Amino acid sequence: MKIGILGGGQLGRMLIQQALKYDDTWEVLDPSANAPCANIARHTLGSFADYNAVLEFGRKVDVLSIEIEHVNAQALADLEKEGIKVIPNAKAISMIQSKIMQKAFYVQHGIPTASYQAIQTVSQINFPTPFVQKTSTGGYDGKGVQIIRSKEEMHKLWDVPSVIESLIDIEKELSVIVARNEKGETAVFPITEMVADPELNLLDFNVCPAEISKDVHAQIQTISDAFLSAVDSPGLFAIELLLDKQGKVWVNEVAPRLHNSGHQTQEGNANSQFEQMYRILKGFPLADTNSIGYSGMLNLVGAAGYSGRVQYEGLDKVLTLSRTYVHLYGKEQTQPGRKMGHINVVRDSREELLDMLLKIKKMVRVIS
Amino acid sequence: MKIGILGGGQLGRMLIQQALKYDDTWEVLDPSANAPCANIARHTLGSFADYNAVLEFGRKVDVLSIEIEHVNAQALADLEKEGIKVIPNAKAISMIQSKIMQKAFYVQHGIPTASYQAIQTVSQINFPTPFVQKTSTGGYDGKGVQIIRSKEEMHKLWDVPSVIESLIDIEKELSVIVARNEKGETAVFPITEMVADPELNLLDFNVCPAEISKDVHAQIQTISDAFLSAVDSPGLFAIELLLDKQGKVWVNEVAPRLHNSGHQTQEGNANSQFEQMYRILKGFPLADTNSIGYSGMLNLVGAAGYSGRVQYEGLDKVLTLSRTYVHLYGKEQTQPGRKMGHINVVRDSREELLDMLLKIKKMVRVIS
Repeated sequence: MKIGILGGGQLGRMLIQQALKYDDTWEVLDPSANAPCANIARHTLGSFADYNAVLEFGRKVDVLSIEIEHVNAQALADLEKEGIKVIPNAKAISMIQSKIMQKAFYVQHGIPTASYQAIQTVSQINFPTPFVQKTSTGGYDGKGVQIIRSKEEMHKLWDVPSVIESLIDIEKELSVIVARNEKGETAVFPITEMVADPELNLLDFNVCPAEISKDVHAQIQTISDAFLSAVDSPGLFAIELLLDKQGKVWVNEVAPRLHNSGHQTQEGNANSQFEQMYRILKGFPLADTNSIGYSGMLNLVGAAGYSGRVQYEGLDKVLTLSRTYVHLYGKEQTQPGRKMGHINVVRDSREELLDMLLKIKKMVRVIS
Repeated sequence: MKIGILGGGQLGRMLIQQALKYDDTWEVLDPSANAPCANIARHTLGSFADYNAVLEFGRKVDVLSIEIEHVNAQALADLEKEGIKVIPNAKAISMIQSKIMQKAFYVQHGIPTASYQAIQTVSQINFPTPFVQKTSTGGYDGKGVQIIRSKEEMHKLWDVPSVIESLIDIEKELSVIVARNEKGETAVFPITEMVADPELNLLDFNVCPAEISKDVHAQIQTISDAFLSAVDSPGLFAIELLLDKQGKVWVNEVAPRLHNSGHQTQEGNANSQFEQMYRILKGFPLADTNSIGYSGMLNLVGAAGYSGRVQYEGLDKVLTLSRTYVHLYGKEQTQPGRKMGHINVVRDSREELLDMLLKIKKMVRVIS
């Protein structure tokens, strides 16, 4: 089968890597000549945000998917009309591309989400501080999101269509990766717990399974079921969740694709998010998602102050550790905050796992 | 690093697939335009048996290795003189290429091997029937090996340089994959037990760890140590062993490369033979080789009577099974006996594992 992916970054690379154990032809559309997927798939140079580029690319393949959500959704809708299979479908991608539409979707389907106001311009704001501003489109890896703590900070607001959202008193950040195939069968990965880097607002490390109560577990199960039923599209989705200090779970946002919070499934689960995504694209039965033990993931992010040809300081030491797995993304150049790779760790207890993740965090540095 | 592999078959493909999680450039030399590695590495069309082709290819890379042993060893020796790193080294590959030299090596280093006579022509045979004839060079996947049961069958002998070997009264066929890096550090995978298909003389399925006594274990440990110390080369080697009905272990032969008997390490061990091979090529610390549970492997071999575009009957059913992993080799055409893929299974007990392997064997068929 000819499978096309919009975007040729690390998510696509790890998907193709996993799926090399099956017989398919992979095509990627990416504007960068040295995209991580460039040497392992047929690479079409072009922008996944461009209507004509996506249309032409999509006509070449049997099934079309994405590894980044900032794609031309109109082209996807028109490809669907031509009979090309698009996973997830254009409607789901369009809905998720717009934070304003996403919020409306949650409200409509009774999925708990923080109270908010949708605005077109800053002058429309009628919402008490403190609040979070999320630009409706174009946000990524923490960009397009800011906290306005008081009236004095209102001058910082971006004057673009946005969601203005009340702050949640966060106890824990959680994530659940859910899958649905064309037959409507669904599968849910164990819930992961995330620890964010306060400086970069980038995911720092994941621990799976999360340490949460039965009640929190049940709330997330209800959210997963509601989302999978409402989204009305095959696909793999990462639901980012916030647990507040009163024990209530809120949906923060959803990514309609493979997700950083699922990387530890590569060695931590019977099957990874990449295997699951592949099976959805092929219309295969969904894979079992059970945890093998306690697994965790540490992002390898470019250190502040270093730009240029990447060097991984301390990697030799990491490679001596048992049940520890290094994944690099084939990127030659590092810059501060750039995601260059990750390290997965599997252990028999949460304590051992956290201990090892912290040790490794001190051991390795991404410099130039 | 630029890593070159002589041969672009499934072993190379699975090595590169595994190593895509690191940043390297992969080059393969293979005569076939649609070799399994063709789309995931830089592919040089040419024969790995040709002196000039290997010499030119080897000069392009930082480290050169093999995924098939029938390569031009003279070119490898000359590349070493030019300072190119060859793993395993030319001396080890040359020794293993010749069954006559292999036998001499075992005798010299006190490694138990069946009594034999090395012959240049059939007329030299002075050995009691029944015996096994193994042609000194060119054997592969059971080709170049035959049993001569009585004097009446002597007309079947191939009149080429051969090893004439006494028959061992086989209780079990075993295999152990051993690794050595440039620093001389070594690692040994758990021992696997093999069940051969009597018709095709191709490996049929593996079970790991093998069910053997402590004494047999100790004999194999001694053999592994002796081999790793004697071979005097970095590399990954598969030592094929025969356990006789008296409980004694004999070396049948050694492959200086990744091996079919190690495929279940992909999901059955903390790290696979492919990860281990990669680490040897890079000069990295060796990986831990512990078993995760009981693992087994079933070859997907082209069914008799079918040649042409491959179809995998029953694969959908296999994909519904938990802890069961399908690996296809990217070959478009099947033919009787051709290795097209394999299926790995992981279970908590040997009984469950054998039961599932037998079920799967009946479930799936490689046809056209």
